[in-house]
Amino acid sequence: MQLTQAHRDALHDILRWRRDVRHFLPDPIAPDVLGRLRAAMDMAPSVGNARPWRVMQVETPGLRTEIIANFEAANAKAAGIYDDAKRSRYNALKLAGLREAPVHLAIFTETDPDAGHGLGRQSMPEMLTYSTVAAIYTLWLAARAENIGVGWVSILDADAVARTLGAPDHWRLTGYLCLGTAAQDDDTPLLHRNDWQENTPTDWQVV
Amino acid sequence: MQLTQAHRDALHDILRWRRDVRHFLPDPIAPDVLGRLRAAMDMAPSVGNARPWRVMQVETPGLRTEIIANFEAANAKAAGIYDDAKRSRYNALKLAGLREAPVHLAIFTETDPDAGHGLGRQSMPEMLTYSTVAAIYTLWLAARAENIGVGWVSILDADAVARTLGAPDHWRLTGYLCLGTAAQDDDTPLLHRNDWQENTPTDWQVV
Repeated sequence: MQLTQAHRDALHDILRWRRDVRHFLPDPIAPDVLGRLRAAMDMAPSVGNARPWRVMQVETPGLRTEIIANFEAANAKAAGIYDDAKRSRYNALKLAGLREAPVHLAIFTETDPDAGHGLGRQSMPEMLTYSTVAAIYTLWLAARAENIGVGWVSILDADAVARTLGAPDHWRLTGYLCLGTAAQDDDTPLLHRNDWQENTPTDWQVV
Repeated sequence: MQLTQAHRDALHDILRWRRDVRHFLPDPIAPDVLGRLRAAMDMAPSVGNARPWRVMQVETPGLRTEIIANFEAANAKAAGIYDDAKRSRYNALKLAGLREAPVHLAIFTETDPDAGHGLGRQSMPEMLTYSTVAAIYTLWLAARAENIGVGWVSILDADAVARTLGAPDHWRLTGYLCLGTAAQDDDTPLLHRNDWQENTPTDWQVV
């Protein structure tokens, strides 16, 4: 299929207005929208067509409470690397929307799948996890196109999340996502906006 | 910005018609197209806004020759895991278009960037590499929208690629990409089409 300027313009809008969202409205996400996000993941690239991502939608309040406690402990520990001035700036940032977001998704990688028969991952076994990252990002872009915000929470003890959720031994947590309606739209990353880290252009050299 | 059904339809086309391409036409890629792909990467998500991806566009013929030899050695080694019947099927697959693709990109992760000030990667340091994976996939989707195919070559000794290209010590290879015009369009993964691994739907459970 020959894609057109309209496709390029639409992708540009989606990329430009995709943000890592930490401020959510509590509105629920309609089941048909979630269904379309799940279907979008089926189109993600994966090494050897192994499709190693495994999704747990976390609804049980007690499980969410454990995840929030996990985040708070990891965040307090992370703050410890900064000097006093930087730490007070760090602590002023809102880095997750776990309490407000209507949908939580824990996304794991099956680390020893039969699917794919090992193709493409003998010399770079990390390709399995990279496939899951691509699936997460596929969901993220599809969500933005549905006007649903996604926040990727990486300030977590990943092994403890897996234990909390009772994941099989061979599943490793790749990403924990909050989904919901963003409290505001922005075309600029929050960490640029609040002077934590400015945007920089891609470093590209020819050799 | 409120995105529309037109955005969702365009994204669906891009996702559905994106393939991992191993069969390229030799036509060059126009510099303005490559420039737009580079600009698209600037919009990729990254942990702490650290933007740790570093791109080397490999043009020197001697360097490409070394990369091809690297692939061929890694591929011969990978074939060794299969029994005779499976190995002959493996060897019949074309797993890279390194000889024909007009553009080669080696994409590294800066493993200790100042940018981002460590935010979001204390408990999951792998988030830096995941950011690079998202940047690669951003380029891949933007390329497909420009009717340029991308093939991700993972059957490589990654450390040897970094040595061949003279990458700094703190850069690690995340992905090696071939770009060019695809020899044919397809909405189905080649590994499904040729019965290596069928497509399977995303595993999604509620807990």
